[in-house]
Amino acid sequence: MSIPKKLKERYTWFKQHSAHEENSSLAFEIISEDKRGLISEISTKIYNLGSDILFFQSWSEYDGKCHTVIQVDNKSNFDAILKSIQEIPEIISVEITSTSKKTWGKRIIIIGGGAQVSSVASGAITEADRHNIRGETISVDTIAVIGEDEISNTIDAVGKLHRVGILVLAGSLMGGKITKSVKNLRSVHGIPVIALNMAGSVTKVCDLVVSDPVEAGVMAVMLISNIGAFNLLKVHGDKY
Amino acid sequence: MSIPKKLKERYTWFKQHSAHEENSSLAFEIISEDKRGLISEISTKIYNLGSDILFFQSWSEYDGKCHTVIQVDNKSNFDAILKSIQEIPEIISVEITSTSKKTWGKRIIIIGGGAQVSSVASGAITEADRHNIRGETISVDTIAVIGEDEISNTIDAVGKLHRVGILVLAGSLMGGKITKSVKNLRSVHGIPVIALNMAGSVTKVCDLVVSDPVEAGVMAVMLISNIGAFNLLKVHGDKY
Repeated sequence: MSIPKKLKERYTWFKQHSAHEENSSLAFEIISEDKRGLISEISTKIYNLGSDILFFQSWSEYDGKCHTVIQVDNKSNFDAILKSIQEIPEIISVEITSTSKKTWGKRIIIIGGGAQVSSVASGAITEADRHNIRGETISVDTIAVIGEDEISNTIDAVGKLHRVGILVLAGSLMGGKITKSVKNLRSVHGIPVIALNMAGSVTKVCDLVVSDPVEAGVMAVMLISNIGAFNLLKVHGDKY
Repeated sequence: MSIPKKLKERYTWFKQHSAHEENSSLAFEIISEDKRGLISEISTKIYNLGSDILFFQSWSEYDGKCHTVIQVDNKSNFDAILKSIQEIPEIISVEITSTSKKTWGKRIIIIGGGAQVSSVASGAITEADRHNIRGETISVDTIAVIGEDEISNTIDAVGKLHRVGILVLAGSLMGGKITKSVKNLRSVHGIPVIALNMAGSVTKVCDLVVSDPVEAGVMAVMLISNIGAFNLLKVHGDKY
């Protein structure tokens, strides 16, 4: 099986960089009233100050307040941005904090059913701990999902997450729509996929098949960490 | 120990609702060239069409492309928004997809060191699987971190995440700056905290102390799921 061009490029870039290397380490954390048009107002102010926004997240909270996190490039005039945001009447507080990439780093996503998800997670978390002690930052995010449609939709949603390094599928049977979603995630989003050695067509379209769930989790970390020589492009298509 | 007002309100709201109840189930997924000012342009267009943005996330990818996910309220004219976004020359693709809240649901965050993080995660993932089968959507996100400053900074960063239901601290010794960060997360962000029964001052400021790591993970799920009667406000301050 061939490796999609985008996967090869994105993986090589992802593997080479430590998660906390980036051109900005500061973010603005804003709490405000939930006024319609506020995202437009804040982002236009930052644009007018000549800054490049690297990350922007904003959402409504349960109490009608709006939370916003904005990361701008290092050449930005942080004081001027801070001042200009504070001038907006609906702003309750603005703080300058470290970025989410620096804190949570590269992400491993684990999707599948009960016992196997826990085992894969256990391997990945223990191995991530060892890499993080040595200077990487790798977090492990899991969701237990059942059903072909549900798993397929969840895999599609992985392409909408930021900082994802690799996906591990933890189950005993996956195929049909799931296989289509894996193909799409790999070719359109360039995200590599490990599968347990399971029934169904999904193992035929994954980058690596691993029989032991703990080992699958450990390998996921080794593959995206910039520490160590294990490289997906060298073991691609292997079964363990 | 008293329960901060914000925690009581936010927890009650969080507990009562299933993760996929919300006033919009659709989001726009946009891939574009990474032009400065694009966030301002897109959000202004949506504002001018009279829509309320419930969630907005945008970031730069490795290849110089920009990824944007936008959730608007159900009353919005989805076709008009789609058309108006497509008119921007830098847009490569726009798709209408389901929301991240519907897919990933309520989040449990686990922070701490190696073996204990894995054990807490194992309990939480296995229990989340059981609740998700019954109609909830709960995901479990973990990071292994070492050091007082690092753990403290990571706890501060939990307040910047969206959809967080509860934080579990998995370690054998936590105090000092970590204790301050827990106090702040609870009172300012209203996010409850479970700690393992560990050394250090942190257990004195948490909502629940649980000795067994697997049980701590299981309880985290039970506390935020809208299935079942286990309620933080009834067991608050207990040690298990």
